[in-house]
Amino acid sequence: MTYEVHGVSSSGNCYKVRLVLEQLGLPYRWHEVDMMSGACRTEAFRKLNPNGKVPVLIIDGNTTLSESGAIISYLADASPLLPTDRLERAQVLQWMFFEQYSHEPYVAVARFIRVFLKQHDDPRLPEKTAGSYRALDVMEQHLATRTFFVGERYTIADIALYAYTHVADEAGLDLANYPHIRAWLERVRTQPRHIEMPGVDQ
Amino acid sequence: MTYEVHGVSSSGNCYKVRLVLEQLGLPYRWHEVDMMSGACRTEAFRKLNPNGKVPVLIIDGNTTLSESGAIISYLADASPLLPTDRLERAQVLQWMFFEQYSHEPYVAVARFIRVFLKQHDDPRLPEKTAGSYRALDVMEQHLATRTFFVGERYTIADIALYAYTHVADEAGLDLANYPHIRAWLERVRTQPRHIEMPGVDQ
Repeated sequence: MTYEVHGVSSSGNCYKVRLVLEQLGLPYRWHEVDMMSGACRTEAFRKLNPNGKVPVLIIDGNTTLSESGAIISYLADASPLLPTDRLERAQVLQWMFFEQYSHEPYVAVARFIRVFLKQHDDPRLPEKTAGSYRALDVMEQHLATRTFFVGERYTIADIALYAYTHVADEAGLDLANYPHIRAWLERVRTQPRHIEMPGVDQ
Repeated sequence: MTYEVHGVSSSGNCYKVRLVLEQLGLPYRWHEVDMMSGACRTEAFRKLNPNGKVPVLIIDGNTTLSESGAIISYLADASPLLPTDRLERAQVLQWMFFEQYSHEPYVAVARFIRVFLKQHDDPRLPEKTAGSYRALDVMEQHLATRTFFVGERYTIADIALYAYTHVADEAGLDLANYPHIRAWLERVRTQPRHIEMPGVDQ
């Protein structure tokens, strides 16, 4: 069976899905969505995801799944990327919910404003920057005594947090004071079958 | 074993945890956190959750788990509230991530501004209200042909979405045009061992 993904290559949320597919060696076809021209708002796209967001995974040709966290949990099920222990699974989810609530809405949105909208004086940026550093502080403290986020091994929690943290510079953030995050980024980058996120045409 | 929960009774995110504990008949002790006086920002609280947010579950006296979605997934594991089927589990997560990204930051924040801050002319309210209705539209469409969010039975996806939707009026939202949501709220409210969320002292 070949999965199908509708996604934006330069989106961190979509990159999470591609990275899991590549690292697990799963066959897939990628359908690039032209987000900036409003392709997520069309009738056709809303049939895939009524919430109008990428990524969307199509399983078996007609079953759709949205929300990057749900998609990568599904793909990683019964693989080394998702622990089977009940507590560790919950800890993986804890960091994935942390990423979507306390990290992505700051880091990814600051990056979007700077790189895609090119609005470097956007009035939202100070609050987005402050929230980004709050999230990075939490990560730095956690990684001070750990190699990966959960269970001392590489899981989809690391993938979820890597997606936007590794392009923190594009969000205008400086990781100089975050040595543990930088060392962890390097550990993620050197995992087997790692692929880079495509850059943004600027 | 008795769980411990640090939470705010009038917070929907904390109510999700209490509702799951009650419906599964699990023993727990509730520690009320005085959010409005900054109790989440103290050193002591940050030892429970470095991200400074409620709810926090304490398992076995010293293992902590944060993020309501992770906590209720943990508690509901191997119970009727969380399917064992791989796709259905992912669909439950899809709706829980939808709630945390596209619903809670609008509905819960609009409610917080109105009920807790009492700022009825807050400049954020128009955007929060618009986002709330977008989320409600997605739910209404989904529920038009279903009794519950996933697999035609009551799961933690319903609990996650019920928490703030059932107090939509406190967020200044009108559910008159959402008959399927209103019927679903009633189905959730009449589940065995349902408890109400404590009201807000105003």
